[in-house]
Parts: sequence; C-alpha cells; structure tokens
Amino acid sequence: MPAFDDDPVIHDVRSRVASLHAQLVRYGLVVWTGGNVSGRVRRGGDPGDDLFVIKPSGVSYDDLTADDLVLCDLDGNVVAGTHGSERAPSSDTAAHAHVYRNMPEVGGVVHTHSTYAVAWAARGEEIPCAITAMADEFGGPIPVGPFAIIGDDSIGRGIVETLRGHRSRAVLMRGHGPFTVGVSAEDAVKAAVMLEDVARTVQIARQGGTVVPLPQEAIDALYDRYQNVYGQQTDARRSAS
Amino acid sequence: MPAFDDDPVIHDVRSRVASLHAQLVRYGLVVWTGGNVSGRVRRGGDPGDDLFVIKPSGVSYDDLTADDLVLCDLDGNVVAGTHGSERAPSSDTAAHAHVYRNMPEVGGVVHTHSTYAVAWAARGEEIPCAITAMADEFGGPIPVGPFAIIGDDSIGRGIVETLRGHRSRAVLMRGHGPFTVGVSAEDAVKAAVMLEDVARTVQIARQGGTVVPLPQEAIDALYDRYQNVYGQQTDARRSAS
Amino acid sequence: MPAFDDDPVIHDVRSRVASLHAQLVRYGLVVWTGGNVSGRVRRGGDPGDDLFVIKPSGVSYDDLTADDLVLCDLDGNVVAGTHGSERAPSSDTAAHAHVYRNMPEVGGVVHTHSTYAVAWAARGEEIPCAITAMADEFGGPIPVGPFAIIGDDSIGRGIVETLRGHRSRAVLMRGHGPFTVGVSAEDAVKAAVMLEDVARTVQIARQGGTVVPLPQEAIDALYDRYQNVYGQQTDARRSAS
Amino acid sequence: MPAFDDDPVIHDVRSRVASLHAQLVRYGLVVWTGGNVSGRVRRGGDPGDDLFVIKPSGVSYDDLTADDLVLCDLDGNVVAGTHGSERAPSSDTAAHAHVYRNMPEVGGVVHTHSTYAVAWAARGEEIPCAITAMADEFGGPIPVGPFAIIGDDSIGRGIVETLRGHRSRAVLMRGHGPFTVGVSAEDAVKAAVMLEDVARTVQIARQGGTVVPLPQEAIDALYDRYQNVYGQQTDARRSAS
Repeated sequence: MPAFDDDPVIHDVRSRVASLHAQLVRYGLVVWTGGNVSGRVRRGGDPGDDLFVIKPSGVSYDDLTADDLVLCDLDGNVVAGTHGSERAPSSDTAAHAHVYRNMPEVGGVVHTHSTYAVAWAARGEEIPCAITAMADEFGGPIPVGPFAIIGDDSIGRGIVETLRGHRSRAVLMRGHGPFTVGVSAEDAVKAAVMLEDVARTVQIARQGGTVVPLPQEAIDALYDRYQNVYGQQTDARRSAS
Repeated sequence: MPAFDDDPVIHDVRSRVASLHAQLVRYGLVVWTGGNVSGRVRRGGDPGDDLFVIKPSGVSYDDLTADDLVLCDLDGNVVAGTHGSERAPSSDTAAHAHVYRNMPEVGGVVHTHSTYAVAWAARGEEIPCAITAMADEFGGPIPVGPFAIIGDDSIGRGIVETLRGHRSRAVLMRGHGPFTVGVSAEDAVKAAVMLEDVARTVQIARQGGTVVPLPQEAIDALYDRYQNVYGQQTDARRSAS
Repeated sequence: MPAFDDDPVIHDVRSRVASLHAQLVRYGLVVWTGGNVSGRVRRGGDPGDDLFVIKPSGVSYDDLTADDLVLCDLDGNVVAGTHGSERAPSSDTAAHAHVYRNMPEVGGVVHTHSTYAVAWAARGEEIPCAITAMADEFGGPIPVGPFAIIGDDSIGRGIVETLRGHRSRAVLMRGHGPFTVGVSAEDAVKAAVMLEDVARTVQIARQGGTVVPLPQEAIDALYDRYQNVYGQQTDARRSAS
Repeated sequence: MPAFDDDPVIHDVRSRVASLHAQLVRYGLVVWTGGNVSGRVRRGGDPGDDLFVIKPSGVSYDDLTADDLVLCDLDGNVVAGTHGSERAPSSDTAAHAHVYRNMPEVGGVVHTHSTYAVAWAARGEEIPCAITAMADEFGGPIPVGPFAIIGDDSIGRGIVETLRGHRSRAVLMRGHGPFTVGVSAEDAVKAAVMLEDVARTVQIARQGGTVVPLPQEAIDALYDRYQNVYGQQTDARRSAS
C-alpha cells in the first residue's frame, strides 16, 4: 500500500471533492466559508477502516485545492503527516465521521446553510412531496431531524437516526440546516442542490395558495422509475465515491 | 440525401439546439442536469417523417456539444448509428415526440422545472394575464394541463390537448412543471424564459395585494400587434427550426 | 456640420448608450431582448431639433454595438441612411420620442420589465417612500401612470403627465412597467437600477410586517442633500447626455 | 516615519480595503455606487491618532483601485496631499469616523443597503436569533438603531450606542440600513455578508409559518464555541486590520 499522499485513490477523491465545492458556490448554497463537502476513501477492507477527506475550517472557496483537504479516519481524527493535516478540519467533521461510521453505503456527505432549506429547518417543518421532481429525487417528503448542538456526536446521531431506512438522502436539522448524503460525494452534492431547489419551489408555491402533496402511488411510481431508468449507464449517481 | 451525420440541415439543428441549452442556464431555469430542449429536423416531405434532436439524459450542461444530442424519429426511437445514439435520450423524449407528431407547426419543445412556473403548476392554477408582457407574448393566461405520470404518452397527450387551439405556447403540467413550444427551438426557449419571467412577476405582484387581469380587448390588441409588428424581419421567431 | 455618421457627438452618444444596455443585463432588469435605453443627441439649437439614438427592436443584448442603434428625430422617425437605419427601432420609440419632445431637460430614457417594479405597476400602487435610499434618489414615492396601449402617443403622454413637476425620475405605467428619465442616459439607467432596488426592498419589507413612510421633513432633507452634495464634481449625474 | 503615500502599512490597508469592495458586489449587497468599506490604519500610539481609508463618494465598484481610496483622520477630515485626496470621501465618512473614534477595538466598518437587512430596518424590527448560524456569528438578535438623518454625528452616535457592549457586530439603522463593524475590514465585510444571509433566511422562514428563537443557553454555547474554536489559527477574524 502506498503512503497516503502517494495513493492514487486518495488523490482522486481529493480532486473530486475539491472541485465539487465549486458546485455549492455555483448554485448559491453557501456564503463566505460556510458549508462543506466530504468524500469517503474506500480502503477495500472493513468499511470501519475507511477514511474520508473534508474541507478545512474557515477557508475560502476560491483558494481551495485538493491538497488543502484534510484526511480523517472514521473517528474524525486527522491522519497526521498527510497533505492538509496542518489545518483544522471543518467544525462539522464529527458529524460527517459519525455518518460514515454508521452508514457504510454512504460515499459522500454535504452540509450547507442554503436559504430555503434552512427556512424549513427553522420552522421544524418537513417539506411535503408536492412536485414530481421531489418524488423523482427524494421519493417523498424531506424529514426533519432533532435540534442538536455542535461539539459532540449529537448532530451525527440525529442525521443517522433520521435518514436510516428513509428514501430521502436529505435531512433538515431543526434550527440549523440541511445535511445530505449519497453513494458518492457527487451524489451528495446533487442532493444538496436539488434539496434547495425543491425547498424553494414548494415554499413559493405555498406562498401563492394551497398546495397538496402528490398521491402516494404516483410518488412511488416516479421514485422507482427515476432510480432505475434516468441518466446514462455511466451516471455518477450509480458509482461509489 | 446525405447520411444523417453528414446532413448540413441536421448539423445546423444540432448546433443551434446545443447552444440554446446555455440559455436555460443563463436565465436560471434549470439546475444540475434537469431540463431539455429539442428541435425538429424538417425533412421536406410528410411532417410525420421528420426527425428531432434532443438532449441526452442526465448529462451536464457544461459538457454538452452538438454531437452529444440524440437524433430521434417522431415515435421517439433513437436513429441508430448516428452521433449521440450511444446515449439514452432525455427521459422526456416520448412527450417531445408526441408533440412533434401531433403539432406539425411546432419546430421546438422545451421542458424545465423553473421555480415560479412549477409553483403555479404545483397549485394547479393558471397564470392570469395581468401584465402587458404576458398579453404580448402569450395572448392571455397560461393554461394548466393534467397531472400525468412519466413513462407513456400521457404527458405528451396532455400538452397537445391543452395547447392545441390555444394562443399560449406554454402549458403548466399539474404537479410537474412547464412545457413550451415554438415555431423553432429558439422560439420555444424564448417562451420558456418569458414564462418564468411572467410567472414570477405575477406571483410577486399578488403577494403584495390584489391584481386584476387586463381587459380582454387590451389583451387582444397587444397580442395582435406583437405577433405582427415586433422585432426585425429576420427575427428568429418568424423562421421555422 | 459633419454627416451624422461622422459626427463625433453622435458617435459618443451611440457608444455610451450601447454600453449602458449591459447595465440592464448586469442588474437583472431585462430578459431576452426586452427593455431599451435611449439617449438624446443635443444639436445646440432648438431642443425640438435634437435627435436620439435607441435600441433596435428584438435584438439580443449580447450582439448590440454602437452602430446597431437607430438614430431618430423627435417625432420618432428613423434618420434615413445612417448607421442602424436598416433596422426597426424599438417598439417603444414613439414613447421615448414623446418624452424628448416634451421634456427638453431629459437626456435619457429607459424602459424595462424589471420584476418588482412591474409587480407594483400590476397592482397600480405607488411605492411609498419608506427608506432613506428612496428619499435620496427619488425624493418621495414612485408615482403610477395610466394604463395605455402601445401604438400611439398614449404611453408617452402618460409618462410626461405623471413625471412633469414630480421629483421622481421614475413612473410605473399601470399594468405594464417602469419608465425612467434622467439628465443623461446614464442617469436614466441609474434610476432604473435604483427603482428596482427600492421596489424590491419595500415590497419585501412589507411582506414581513407593517412599514410606515418616512416623515416628509426627513424626505425633504435627504433629497436636498443627495442632489447637491453626493458624488464627485465630475459625477455623470450632473452632466447632460 | 515614511510619508503617508510611501507607508507600507497604509498601502497594505488600502489594498485590502479596495479588494474587499468586490465582496459586496459578489454577494449582491450593493447596486450602482452604493455602499462602502473602510479600514483603520493603526499608527501604534494613541488610537485617537489612527487614520482610516474609505471609498470615495459615487465611484463605480468596477473602477476602484487602492489609490482611489481616501485617507482620513478620526474627525473625518481628508489627509491633504495623499492618494485619493482630490476626491470627496463617501458621504458616510462622518459615521465611520465616529465609530473609529469611540470604539478603538474596531478595525473596519461596512455600510450597505442590502435588501433583506434594509427590509428589517424599514420595519424597525430586530432580527430574532432563530438559526444556529446567527448564534454562531452574532451571538443573539441583530439590534435596531435609531432613525438618524445623514449630515452630522447622529448616525455614528446611533451605531456606537447600539453596538457598544452588544455581541452583535451588526446594527440595523431604522428606515435606513445596516452598518457592521469588525476587528478588521475583512471581519466587518464578513459580518455584512452573514447579516444579509440571516436577514433573508429568517424572513423567508417566517413567511412560511411560525419561527421561534433558539433557547438562550443554546445561543450562548454556540457563540462561545464559534468565537473560540472555529477557523484556522491564522483566521483573519482574529487579526486586527
């Protein structure tokens, strides 16, 4: 096994996660240094021995390179001596680590304070599944997770408890904001982008009058089709991080 | 007749449709890989023998080139062996095909999930014609089409049944979003852009107080003038795709 | 006197008006080919003999050059044989001409369908002067002009009757949208930009609760200071077109 | 001591403050020539002998260079014979000077008319602390300062009286708009960006239903952590201007 900084798999995850941060900027999901993307590094053995790379804390999106990302183990400890290890990882690192430790199928995690998703989170209200784009992407409503203070495992536990067994790859942490997961970092970023889009659209729809959720059988049919038919065979959504 | 990939008419439609996709991005009508534009290829004989080109499914707007577009017949079947035929066409291809098959005057079709148009669609509410820009462009209210699940002809049928004989080139498919048509792909894209603009403006107007529709005779006068006077003689709206 | 196409004064107005159109795009006041800017060409004699240049009808903002603008007399007739005279001028040309003919102090006119200004226009509601930025720039509320159909002098008359003797350089034509005027084309564009800004801010303020207008004596003091003190001595607002 | 125009400390503050203005544009906090950033020049002696640099009045953001900024003493007088001294400083200079004179810990001041912050200011309503991002950044609600007319010390006095002893680095001047302060110009700009973000998010949250403030003990814990843990050790927030 090569040293971590020479490992082409780690290098590839670093490159992809660094460039995915630009999508948060492009879609207006973040301001200043807020928000973060992480990506799992699969080591090929016990998923508990996997690693992940994550954005350093308080660093500008304009300056972010692959080697600035911080490599951590699934307890959230920085892997000493590797690229970026002189920086503090995102203050949300414990939450990301908890998700990777407890959801081995997850290849990427994203956190933002995107406006409309935070608005629903501030009200502690799940987003009803009222448009076909939501049924396609999330298979139903977007659930609300508990209010949790940063600093221990409580955010990570809230994410896992809410998303485990749920179709949705997005959770609205009450009074805080959204976390999304995916089979890859790209898939988690797509979920963050689509979440803000549906959060905005459904709220704006409701500001103009009554909106009723789609029938459950229509939601089921749309979700099933989208997960199995949409996109190209090489679609990144299908591939692990 | 040259082979399809050497045909300058097809090449021209491919180029124009590919570059028109950038307008959906520019005006914020789409996120990620959502939305699609298609353009009819007129073959000079029976309109039923025409073809159309359409965006492939799940491909990024940043990467889209003319040769990535997929050439289809009016039953929605990919023309084997042509540029882009190794890709799956947009999952909305059956709807586009149905429109081309049943509305020979249509040269372009656009589908987006633009925020305010989807908001009206989610409420199942037609947009009242309350500003002169709507009267100019659409000649009256924007109608609502039926709720239809993707996967068969039902979306295409709903579009055709709603738009046939209607001044509006835009329809709000209930619970889903807008489809627009035009004499050319550019005209359909213009309709998608103007639709979101009026959907946003009329909803925001109403959020601040009462809005009443324009008098019918004013709508008629505005629509007549705009269709017959506005623009240059070489205006693309006048030319078929 | 040089031929019109060789006249450096006309060339200068053409250049400035062409580049000012980019400000409408930058601030999101227009979509597609909508909106227009014109600038008066002062001829040094009777203001009634002045000319003006205006955007051609239905031409993309991306493609607009100084020589594409159409030179017109104050009756709105195209000056034959000059740059751009092969194109139809903006369909709002008659309204611009009426303003220049009747308000000799006006050096520039702008028309857009910017979202929030049109929203107030659709309600036929003047914008109350509730923030200091409005008092600075407009000296009070933004007035509403009559509903008028395009095609004769009625829009131009409505603008002039509403703005003559009013501090505001902006009018909301009912059911249609804003027109702004200024001592120069740049000043009129600034008014269009600031109008949309205050239209948006005051409506959003009111959507969150009660907003009361500023006291009249505060409005008067702010307007007086801003018109006489703000900016550099070479500020374009002070110079005629 | 070198002459002011050769002083590397002054040169550095000029460069940083000039480039920080681009952040106001990037985050949509300003239109046209509105808004301004200033930065304190620490002279190493009595803070009352410090200087500050500020944007000139009515100058475009596109054209702004380091040497365009105007150097002033803490009474708001331009330092004659220095770069930029031929220009009038921002019309808000007296307010900035009052803040620097009375709050020696302040290294930067920012004023904008950003939409949602002005909306709360127009209502004269403090922004309740309903999301964790607000608790992190501002430690509680954003307070409202008095209505004050420009032209004397009254705006500066209102800012200082409201912010002194308050956790918030932002104040909403009633009927006018926000001022933010920070330990450096960058910190004040960050506060302006985060303020608009939370002003927008909390208003949009409330437009969709009931929003309750966070518990005080959660606010205290979040604020304490963020001020002491977040970011890198070299984080600009920690360093004086």
